[in-house]
Amino acid sequence: MSRLNHHALFEDHVVTAADWYHLRSWRRHLPDLTWVTVLSGFWLWVVYFALIAVLIGLYHTVLVPRGAPDWPPKNVASVLYQPFAITSFALALLMVFRTNSSYARWWEARTVWGQVFNVTRNLVRQADAWFGEEDVAAFQMLVRWCAAAGYILQAHLCTAKLGPEAEGLLHPEELKLLASWEHRPICAGQVLSSIVASAVKDSQLRAAMDDQIATYINDAGACERIQRTCIPFCYTRHTSRFLILWLTFLPFALWEICGWASPVAEAVLAFLLMGVENIGIQIEEPFHVLPMHSYCAVIAKNALEVARERKGLDLFVEEA
Amino acid sequence: MSRLNHHALFEDHVVTAADWYHLRSWRRHLPDLTWVTVLSGFWLWVVYFALIAVLIGLYHTVLVPRGAPDWPPKNVASVLYQPFAITSFALALLMVFRTNSSYARWWEARTVWGQVFNVTRNLVRQADAWFGEEDVAAFQMLVRWCAAAGYILQAHLCTAKLGPEAEGLLHPEELKLLASWEHRPICAGQVLSSIVASAVKDSQLRAAMDDQIATYINDAGACERIQRTCIPFCYTRHTSRFLILWLTFLPFALWEICGWASPVAEAVLAFLLMGVENIGIQIEEPFHVLPMHSYCAVIAKNALEVARERKGLDLFVEEA
Amino acid sequence: MSRLNHHALFEDHVVTAADWYHLRSWRRHLPDLTWVTVLSGFWLWVVYFALIAVLIGLYHTVLVPRGAPDWPPKNVASVLYQPFAITSFALALLMVFRTNSSYARWWEARTVWGQVFNVTRNLVRQADAWFGEEDVAAFQMLVRWCAAAGYILQAHLCTAKLGPEAEGLLHPEELKLLASWEHRPICAGQVLSSIVASAVKDSQLRAAMDDQIATYINDAGACERIQRTCIPFCYTRHTSRFLILWLTFLPFALWEICGWASPVAEAVLAFLLMGVENIGIQIEEPFHVLPMHSYCAVIAKNALEVARERKGLDLFVEEA
Amino acid sequence: MSRLNHHALFEDHVVTAADWYHLRSWRRHLPDLTWVTVLSGFWLWVVYFALIAVLIGLYHTVLVPRGAPDWPPKNVASVLYQPFAITSFALALLMVFRTNSSYARWWEARTVWGQVFNVTRNLVRQADAWFGEEDVAAFQMLVRWCAAAGYILQAHLCTAKLGPEAEGLLHPEELKLLASWEHRPICAGQVLSSIVASAVKDSQLRAAMDDQIATYINDAGACERIQRTCIPFCYTRHTSRFLILWLTFLPFALWEICGWASPVAEAVLAFLLMGVENIGIQIEEPFHVLPMHSYCAVIAKNALEVARERKGLDLFVEEA
Amino acid sequence: MSRLNHHALFEDHVVTAADWYHLRSWRRHLPDLTWVTVLSGFWLWVVYFALIAVLIGLYHTVLVPRGAPDWPPKNVASVLYQPFAITSFALALLMVFRTNSSYARWWEARTVWGQVFNVTRNLVRQADAWFGEEDVAAFQMLVRWCAAAGYILQAHLCTAKLGPEAEGLLHPEELKLLASWEHRPICAGQVLSSIVASAVKDSQLRAAMDDQIATYINDAGACERIQRTCIPFCYTRHTSRFLILWLTFLPFALWEICGWASPVAEAVLAFLLMGVENIGIQIEEPFHVLPMHSYCAVIAKNALEVARERKGLDLFVEEA
Repeated sequence: MSRLNHHALFEDHVVTAADWYHLRSWRRHLPDLTWVTVLSGFWLWVVYFALIAVLIGLYHTVLVPRGAPDWPPKNVASVLYQPFAITSFALALLMVFRTNSSYARWWEARTVWGQVFNVTRNLVRQADAWFGEEDVAAFQMLVRWCAAAGYILQAHLCTAKLGPEAEGLLHPEELKLLASWEHRPICAGQVLSSIVASAVKDSQLRAAMDDQIATYINDAGACERIQRTCIPFCYTRHTSRFLILWLTFLPFALWEICGWASPVAEAVLAFLLMGVENIGIQIEEPFHVLPMHSYCAVIAKNALEVARERKGLDLFVEEA
Repeated sequence: MSRLNHHALFEDHVVTAADWYHLRSWRRHLPDLTWVTVLSGFWLWVVYFALIAVLIGLYHTVLVPRGAPDWPPKNVASVLYQPFAITSFALALLMVFRTNSSYARWWEARTVWGQVFNVTRNLVRQADAWFGEEDVAAFQMLVRWCAAAGYILQAHLCTAKLGPEAEGLLHPEELKLLASWEHRPICAGQVLSSIVASAVKDSQLRAAMDDQIATYINDAGACERIQRTCIPFCYTRHTSRFLILWLTFLPFALWEICGWASPVAEAVLAFLLMGVENIGIQIEEPFHVLPMHSYCAVIAKNALEVARERKGLDLFVEEA
Repeated sequence: MSRLNHHALFEDHVVTAADWYHLRSWRRHLPDLTWVTVLSGFWLWVVYFALIAVLIGLYHTVLVPRGAPDWPPKNVASVLYQPFAITSFALALLMVFRTNSSYARWWEARTVWGQVFNVTRNLVRQADAWFGEEDVAAFQMLVRWCAAAGYILQAHLCTAKLGPEAEGLLHPEELKLLASWEHRPICAGQVLSSIVASAVKDSQLRAAMDDQIATYINDAGACERIQRTCIPFCYTRHTSRFLILWLTFLPFALWEICGWASPVAEAVLAFLLMGVENIGIQIEEPFHVLPMHSYCAVIAKNALEVARERKGLDLFVEEA
Repeated sequence: MSRLNHHALFEDHVVTAADWYHLRSWRRHLPDLTWVTVLSGFWLWVVYFALIAVLIGLYHTVLVPRGAPDWPPKNVASVLYQPFAITSFALALLMVFRTNSSYARWWEARTVWGQVFNVTRNLVRQADAWFGEEDVAAFQMLVRWCAAAGYILQAHLCTAKLGPEAEGLLHPEELKLLASWEHRPICAGQVLSSIVASAVKDSQLRAAMDDQIATYINDAGACERIQRTCIPFCYTRHTSRFLILWLTFLPFALWEICGWASPVAEAVLAFLLMGVENIGIQIEEPFHVLPMHSYCAVIAKNALEVARERKGLDLFVEEA
Repeated sequence: MSRLNHHALFEDHVVTAADWYHLRSWRRHLPDLTWVTVLSGFWLWVVYFALIAVLIGLYHTVLVPRGAPDWPPKNVASVLYQPFAITSFALALLMVFRTNSSYARWWEARTVWGQVFNVTRNLVRQADAWFGEEDVAAFQMLVRWCAAAGYILQAHLCTAKLGPEAEGLLHPEELKLLASWEHRPICAGQVLSSIVASAVKDSQLRAAMDDQIATYINDAGACERIQRTCIPFCYTRHTSRFLILWLTFLPFALWEICGWASPVAEAVLAFLLMGVENIGIQIEEPFHVLPMHSYCAVIAKNALEVARERKGLDLFVEEA
């Protein structure tokens, strides 16, 4: 599947109320053209399976009347599908369980990113409440690094350079420091630790903020874990092998059942079953499909909003 | 499905002992009219499938006797359902697993809201025990914001304005402050932090209360995560596509089996299978079906009860 | 199902070694009379299904020989069960998954109650180690409320009044205080907080004990969550509808297969399948089946044992 | 199943590298005599099912030729297995899900015991780092009780008396104290608390060690929860009932299919299916099969190793 | 399966972007030669099953025409596969659930190793922020032990000696100390505790770092738990027994269906089904397949990077 198609089909976006409304309506079942892009990921295979069915059909309509052995023989026609029936369970279970394992990875990745949101919000909130009036520079620096924390982690995971949005958040010397590190999320953790160590004297509060920084480091580790470990390759490979063999031999059983409709039937079955396997494959590396850029932008926006509202809030609570 | 039907059918309510009694009795299986409202979500599709079955029936009873090719031929009648049989397992697994993923999202959302209950109860309890006698204003303010915390989160999730109940809980200047924020649950967190920072001098106790506030922020993040991320769209779309294709071709196999009963059989099967898929879709966005308003009211009631009982309790324990 | 039968069959009890021994022996498969009580929950439905099978039999043996149309026709007899076969997966999956969701709720409820055990044990242990010698009254009061904590939560969940055992644990004025609250577990939490606040001066230790109290409040919230939220009603209703429709039409297919044995076959199938669904329903509200009263008694006994042993222990450790 | 067989077959042992090597080799599939011991758990039932098949065979070969009604009639022979086919799915799901619930219980019990390992290791480590030089007696006492903690919990769960290994670890007066308690793990928790309270003055470090003690108490609670609660009895009973009924009626369908091979086929099927159910039953009470005694010995060994190495380590770090 | 093959096939490696690209492309389904190595694990069994099919074929083509009894008789040919069909559910469920339990163990092991990453990163970060300027030696020592922590745990699990990389990280006297311990991860924990106790005076910060050390100890315990406990042996054995018996008898049913194609069909089915079981077996002991050496190298590299960057960072934050 070309990168283009993959993106058009599988990249998630932030879901809105209108999306949910559409999803719940009966219109969700209406055919759209997404199947073209799905199919583009494995149409060669579907053609291959249909071709096998066509060849079997030609054999029976062209060669058998001219004396070629009539195999499979007529009398087994009604039971020939049995070897397929008794293995269809194992195949379906294997594919659907594998898809669910991929889904669990994807959801865990989403949850870890949710924690990055939470960590930056909590750090800024705690700094707001606990940093002294005189620590304005430290507070501003902490807000800058919290705002950039999402971008830094994203750049680390996607091996891209830090984008212009992130560069707009940090000061030049901070960017230079960051560039000198190989593992940049750890650098962000170190910087945040140093800010907290310099601005919070009380060890209890310092430890509470350190908890949040440790969560950020743990989240970075969890993202790396998901990205650098795939579902055991032998599992993926055997599922694929089972599916391809099963679909390759299926036309022998379909011919007696469907006659010349069997190439169509075979193609439809191949599309449906390979589609199930394909879902699991496409979401197995979740950072490829999650709308990471939107997430990073929201993290930055939330951190900056807290900094902007800071003055008003303090005065307000003091009055109370 | 119109919004009305959706609500009548899928909105949860707080379950009472009488509900449980009914649920456990044999009467739970008695047919009621809910199937009408369920069906209203996809009756067009059921009609469409029945229509296909009718057309196939007409073809065989009207056109075939007048010379149209008798397809599917008689001799395959007894095995034509096989392609459906060997894929029914994959289809059922796909639908039921998807429904369970939706259920897991729904239950997680419910659990997160349970934590909002807990957080507000714990904050008020801790403030009651740890705020000094002279911090009456701070205590009252904390109670007000805890009581409003549920409404604030609900309004944030459902993009509605803060309702009148919540407005009755907060002071006008507090409402104005809240209105100036874009992300209001963070604002509530900031306010609670500031109250704690001003009223609790001991850093250990302050950190313990901050833990609860951080849980509130995390819960808000978890709600956003669930609401703004749906199950990967390709998964939902492929399940729907599998189901629609499967049901569209099924009447070809049913005709030989059921004859003119096949439109009815097809309609019943379509209703049962689409109903399973429909459950998963309707509960996928849980904030649409959970009785959020009741939850918010209970949060407010519990917080206010603690404030009301405060005096009596303190005296009582001092005596002991 | 009458309340009596439900209790005889579904109420759990604390499992002993003898129970485990019986469960592991081959005798566990011996038929006993529990099926009578199980059946009492839905025997009307089983009779209804058997009746349908009888009516179909009468139609074929009485009316068909006298000229009534022979439907279903003979030639489809061998495939008429196919619509049932291809939906049996979906039905079985739906029922078994639903049963497992109920089981997960039941086990979570049991785990939450396990935490109530732990919380009360830990609170008493911490008070024993950290309360000063002069805080005898506070220690005694904490033990009393820990001992009663289980009863208070049970009474809150089951909407019953506090039983005589709990009333024997608390002093009259404490009972009066408790009665004045609507949400009594919160009241217990407040009292425990106040005791700790008055007896433990060190804020670190106070926060550690507060952690345990917060766990008690969270457990109360978790119990309420499970009790006041059922599995989405549309899910339960659709499973029931699927099952009833499936079993209602099944006799049409069974007649050709089993002849006059079909009423018996239908009744047995109905008993087995409705039994599976019934398990899920009966354990969905776990507080109805868990032996709550035994749990509360153990909580009280453990707390009182610590108080009783207190003196001996202190002397003993001091010597060491 | 006699206790002997159960042990020979189901008791786990600590897995070594050689075990893993054997498990991964093709030799794992070679038949061994374990099936004899497995079968010994339910051979009476297998004989009973085979007997039914034999009686049906005798009926058809002896009585039918002499005029007994030929039931099931020949013409349904090819479809009589259908009622079994459409329920085999529900039966298999029920059995396999139940087995997995048992497995989850077993693994949770193993994980809880893993935490007992961790707790004792952490407590000894913390005491080593935080107890003063002058607290040698307290340190020794803590090591003794940590070393015995596993044995105490095991004795509590298995209702046996404390074994000689544990008695060798504790002093006589400590054993007397322990014997005076009904709930001995709580006693161990109290003693550990008292030691920490007397040796660690800093409340922060004391709270950190208390966390570990609380984990021990929680683990004891979790073990009790698993041991004193079985999977709902109605679930176990209905699975057994489903299986027994299914296998009892199966020979009627098997006769036409397999003839006189049907007693053998029935016995093999009964052995395989009852074996699946049996696994779930045997591991449902995990403390019966886990090698608890080895675990307790390792706990003691690890705690004593830390005590032995203490001197060397301290000097070493001080130098650095 | 020889150790060589196992490694070539099942050892995981750190997944790169190119791997993910290949995995998502249609080329993932192309046959490669991995099936040769997979097959090498159980080819004897596949040959054995094919041989049975050949013998049955010879019996029917050689002996039956010469008067041997024609068993299975012709008239049951079309239903003889039924005993296999009705048990194929149970077999498939058993195998796939077992494979998923193995997968869960493997993923838990990976997650635990992810925590070892996090722990060492957090410890170095905290030491960087909280150790005083004068504690350079302690900081260097902590970095050394954190860098070696992965290697120490790996050596403990794989019963190998500490490799040369680890020996390059620690000083000779440190290696000697380590060698004197039987349980080396506990030794590493003790050393880290002692360093923290000597360098951090503030008890709050000391407790925060102790939390991370406790996590390391817990991770070591979790690794031991996974490595020293296999999925209950009776479960593994019964799955194998079910599979072998099922495949041994299958050729009797296949002969009538496939004729002389049945040895091939049997071999393909055996390869596919035994392959599923084999996956579960090969990943059940995860430390055998995870790229532990790469992980340890990354842990060391990250720790050393923080130490290298220390000076620059401190100056930088002080300026701000």
